[in-house]
Amino acid sequence: MAGSGSYGAVPSTPLLKDELDIVIPTIRNLDFLEMWRPFFQPYHLIIVQDGDPSKTIRVPEGFDYELYNRNDINRILGPKANCISFKDSACRCFGFLVSRKKYIFTIDDDCFVAKDPSDKEINALAQHIKNLLSPSTPFFFNTLYDPFCEGADFVRGYPFSLREGVPTAVSHGLWLNIPDYDAPTQLVKPLERNTRYVDAVLTIPKGTLFPMCGMNLAFNRELIGPAMYFGLMGDGQPIGRYDDMWAGWCSKVICDYLGLGVKTGLPYIWHSKASNPFANLKKEYNGIYWQEEIIPFFQSVTFPKECTTVQKCYIELSKQVKAKLGKLDSYFNKLADSMVAWIEAWNEFSASGKVGAAAAEVPNGPAKGK
Amino acid sequence: MAGSGSYGAVPSTPLLKDELDIVIPTIRNLDFLEMWRPFFQPYHLIIVQDGDPSKTIRVPEGFDYELYNRNDINRILGPKANCISFKDSACRCFGFLVSRKKYIFTIDDDCFVAKDPSDKEINALAQHIKNLLSPSTPFFFNTLYDPFCEGADFVRGYPFSLREGVPTAVSHGLWLNIPDYDAPTQLVKPLERNTRYVDAVLTIPKGTLFPMCGMNLAFNRELIGPAMYFGLMGDGQPIGRYDDMWAGWCSKVICDYLGLGVKTGLPYIWHSKASNPFANLKKEYNGIYWQEEIIPFFQSVTFPKECTTVQKCYIELSKQVKAKLGKLDSYFNKLADSMVAWIEAWNEFSASGKVGAAAAEVPNGPAKGK
Repeated sequence: MAGSGSYGAVPSTPLLKDELDIVIPTIRNLDFLEMWRPFFQPYHLIIVQDGDPSKTIRVPEGFDYELYNRNDINRILGPKANCISFKDSACRCFGFLVSRKKYIFTIDDDCFVAKDPSDKEINALAQHIKNLLSPSTPFFFNTLYDPFCEGADFVRGYPFSLREGVPTAVSHGLWLNIPDYDAPTQLVKPLERNTRYVDAVLTIPKGTLFPMCGMNLAFNRELIGPAMYFGLMGDGQPIGRYDDMWAGWCSKVICDYLGLGVKTGLPYIWHSKASNPFANLKKEYNGIYWQEEIIPFFQSVTFPKECTTVQKCYIELSKQVKAKLGKLDSYFNKLADSMVAWIEAWNEFSASGKVGAAAAEVPNGPAKGK
Repeated sequence: MAGSGSYGAVPSTPLLKDELDIVIPTIRNLDFLEMWRPFFQPYHLIIVQDGDPSKTIRVPEGFDYELYNRNDINRILGPKANCISFKDSACRCFGFLVSRKKYIFTIDDDCFVAKDPSDKEINALAQHIKNLLSPSTPFFFNTLYDPFCEGADFVRGYPFSLREGVPTAVSHGLWLNIPDYDAPTQLVKPLERNTRYVDAVLTIPKGTLFPMCGMNLAFNRELIGPAMYFGLMGDGQPIGRYDDMWAGWCSKVICDYLGLGVKTGLPYIWHSKASNPFANLKKEYNGIYWQEEIIPFFQSVTFPKECTTVQKCYIELSKQVKAKLGKLDSYFNKLADSMVAWIEAWNEFSASGKVGAAAAEVPNGPAKGK
């Protein structure tokens, strides 16, 4: 953890060029990468194509990337490939699996560079790195928000013993323009735009769940990677648009248990277009109903003391999902099995160095552009 | 609770002229009220003079106020007057006791009108009223902050059953310019100024404690008033500058238990000058040490189901303070007794209509200025 003499401040933001992968679930337009070029070009991209594998994603010159389509996923994971969603951006977690880096930034292809109130383009990645490298403070709320931001600190009444904080595992960024609303809210408020630039980063307190959106998200793969499974969504599944939520609930309860931090707030990206609310409603209606039971479930999750790693916590969670949510719908039994398959795949990749081999097998990459 | 058809939004902010008192612990300069005149003049002020009762506080023409000095407090409360601190701004809670209004706004005399980023003067009171009249959401975190602010809503993944929220009991406002730091931080960072205008209001989640500052604070007296006791500080006590913290910890655990909400964020005031860090260190050193035990104590407080009112919760809390913090220092036994005296005084005032009588007895007020 970088830091000066005082509590956890990051004196300057390193680039982490060799320690961070950018994972993108499909790219439907070339503008996306062109717009992000000044910020993304130093990094390695992992693109996970969520649809028809016969279509080719064209990546502009100059980017260092690897691209996986469904055929690649099937070949690399074999029978365990079923745990990766098809025709859904949930497939992005395959990228988390094959990455060899310490940090992941994942972003959707309809998210563009936002501007701050002074009209300056926001380097989202730099802010995420700042968030991830400075500690979190989940045990007590600091009213001036992130005490590690420049010009801020802990306020009067903040216990000194808690000021060291804990390592930050997740940095959840926000969106200007189109807010991340569910289908019912989209339908009721089609014209609402988020114009409020809230200049803050804060730790989500221990014991509090939040809706984690995968649009603009970074995390420390070494600390929390195995919990960043985006579930079974999309093609052949009774639910969609809850992939990131699922990962958020699972990772938050595990972070809380293991003493890791989750931050939300800056950086903003510019969310360019709203997805179709009618299509979204079809994907969401089960989730909207089920989450009324899922949230109390996650609020009451506890882990036995044998759970000393993220993997062990996640396997334990899969058992509790089966035991307690299985009766809600048989989908959760299938999901619990996939959670186990995911961890098995994660462990295989970590142990065998299969990752490097996987990348080498990919027909589309790695293309060393630069 | 005001509201349109959708969840809890306040369509326009009422003035609440006849339902809100402004409580000020002493006024050391006339500029203070002149600066706030456009915003405060419609309201009734309760000034509680914290120092030498022989000195006279001059209130400018046009304000409707009542003023209490130490002699008034002694006469009105009799033997229970000991529960009100002397020579300390903690005496402000006497104003909460004698108020007959539903809402209280309390502010320090070194807090001036702040400006928002568009250079417009901030009507702090209007924002507090907005915060208090719209619900809080303590059970789940909304990443776009207060869903009841204009242009905001609940994001995707926020359970619909939790969107109604709970009544808001406390609105905690912030400070531009001089941040509310403890003495050690003041000494280490004498030049730090808070210039970050964070355009957000948020609910502090259930189960999370925070450092409540009394400089710029509003609350619903009917919902949480009896828990807003500012403790024993200042003259003759081994601790100072923890008055608001004490009230914050007590009121937060009671809000959490009774299903009431606490918001923090907007509005900002301009905190004009830092108090003396050397004097502060002397006041704070016991608190800095003791709070390392006080915080775990409050984090583990539970209430038996007989505690159905704030008063009952507060009496229960006083017993737990005596039982668990008494061994830390005998001060906490004295404090626990004062907590009981405070509730007895509160109940007497509520039951007997003594409040009106008290005001009528005050030599300095009520002055009907306007």
